[in-house]
Amino acid sequence: MQTKSENACFGGVQDVYSHASKATGGEMTFGLFLPEEARHVSVPVLWYLSGLTCTHENAMTKAGAQAWAAEYGIALVFPDTSPRGEGVANDDAYDLGQGAGFYVNATQDPWKPHFRMWDYVAEELPALLGEHFPVDLDRQAICGHSMGGHGALTLAMSLPGRFASVSAFAPIANPTASDWGRKQFAAYLGSDESTWRAHDSTLLMAEKGFDGPVLIDQGTEDQFLDLLKPEALAEAMAARRQEGAFRMQKGYDHSYFFISTFMEEHVAFHAEALLA
Amino acid sequence: MQTKSENACFGGVQDVYSHASKATGGEMTFGLFLPEEARHVSVPVLWYLSGLTCTHENAMTKAGAQAWAAEYGIALVFPDTSPRGEGVANDDAYDLGQGAGFYVNATQDPWKPHFRMWDYVAEELPALLGEHFPVDLDRQAICGHSMGGHGALTLAMSLPGRFASVSAFAPIANPTASDWGRKQFAAYLGSDESTWRAHDSTLLMAEKGFDGPVLIDQGTEDQFLDLLKPEALAEAMAARRQEGAFRMQKGYDHSYFFISTFMEEHVAFHAEALLA
Repeated sequence: MQTKSENACFGGVQDVYSHASKATGGEMTFGLFLPEEARHVSVPVLWYLSGLTCTHENAMTKAGAQAWAAEYGIALVFPDTSPRGEGVANDDAYDLGQGAGFYVNATQDPWKPHFRMWDYVAEELPALLGEHFPVDLDRQAICGHSMGGHGALTLAMSLPGRFASVSAFAPIANPTASDWGRKQFAAYLGSDESTWRAHDSTLLMAEKGFDGPVLIDQGTEDQFLDLLKPEALAEAMAARRQEGAFRMQKGYDHSYFFISTFMEEHVAFHAEALLA
Repeated sequence: MQTKSENACFGGVQDVYSHASKATGGEMTFGLFLPEEARHVSVPVLWYLSGLTCTHENAMTKAGAQAWAAEYGIALVFPDTSPRGEGVANDDAYDLGQGAGFYVNATQDPWKPHFRMWDYVAEELPALLGEHFPVDLDRQAICGHSMGGHGALTLAMSLPGRFASVSAFAPIANPTASDWGRKQFAAYLGSDESTWRAHDSTLLMAEKGFDGPVLIDQGTEDQFLDLLKPEALAEAMAARRQEGAFRMQKGYDHSYFFISTFMEEHVAFHAEALLA
């Protein structure tokens, strides 16, 4: 593992590391914020999964999460959104290939050898964090934005007991019914749509829900509402009386200005579950 | 004036505008955050001047200032750091020409026709803001980072009565004695060093100081300490018993992680002066 950068930040440290990944068969980069408390004790950890076109860096520099993580003594992990580099398949479109891993394990060529972001985020990176850093893997929570909101919700519902709480900003909520989903699932998972169901938050919410609190924020002026399909997830949450809240936020769009506005409330929400 | 973007943000709006500038003889872009209160009343305004290589955008997306400006009901202005575009002189170095206006009016060729950032920030942009937006020009404060800290301090001391308070993150504090300063002043202002003195915060502090509170934050691990020369400004502040505080912050560097860490305190500092 290689330290790419270290910056003092809100009394703790915002680091960036890269490492050879078995899951994705290449070099992966991630950001890690450790609060001051981590100098002495193991701290709870909140995952932040980013959206299309993002790297580990976007949320780390623009979401403003460190201020609140520092307040509650929580670590933040910012994984990349896909494998990258030469020898890794790609596509000219912004929404397929590098920067668009969709948090699945690809079963189809040419994506299969590297695009295994599910295994990377669910298995490899947590193990690496537990081995090298003062993070308490018994106290994890997860959030994400857009494609990363999709990732956070599907991981949380598919790994019961792993995460104390889950939240999302403008998640891709029903990808099996959206051009943000059908295209990528067809490419990564193939034409058998039954394999897609495990990666659709709305379907997972209808089938099993989440054993803990869920917080969703969605802007009413989001330019991608028709692709995100928040109403499908909201209906599924309502139908199963899922613990938590689905909030439509008037006037907000899909940007980091939206995310940073509500970040304090998301971190506080996770802190309540993690520090209970 | 043209609206480049509008994003809802912390109950207010983060806008970006461009306009034809007489001062710089070209198109200029700036960011403006207006808090919710600005829908009904004129609000105080805090200027944020950025450092070398930055545009209007860096601090707007990475400094985390909107959260606190919203809390106090203060507008934020993020000017660009220089004129830009074809026909505007430039240099291959990152610290001269476009992105490096140093908040002076150039008197030398080839910079003279466009590099008039002093006039732009001191005169043209405030007038434009007063004409088009609900900002109260009787309640202004100013801050900045690095080259922008230099700009904030020199403007504040040179325009007595204009700003209620001034603060800086890691300012270029003594440019007439630094390679961040001598090179640029020689290029923009010429070889007569007597013309440089009006643009050196340490010299201005020694000569006249600031009629209000001053807050300076400087990281002890800043990679540019030898260029910034914080000790010169600290000594000048001490010598004249300047109201305010000069703080060395242990472990922090020159990055936006440093800025965002202390932004809450800077905005609170200005709010106390603006809302008194």
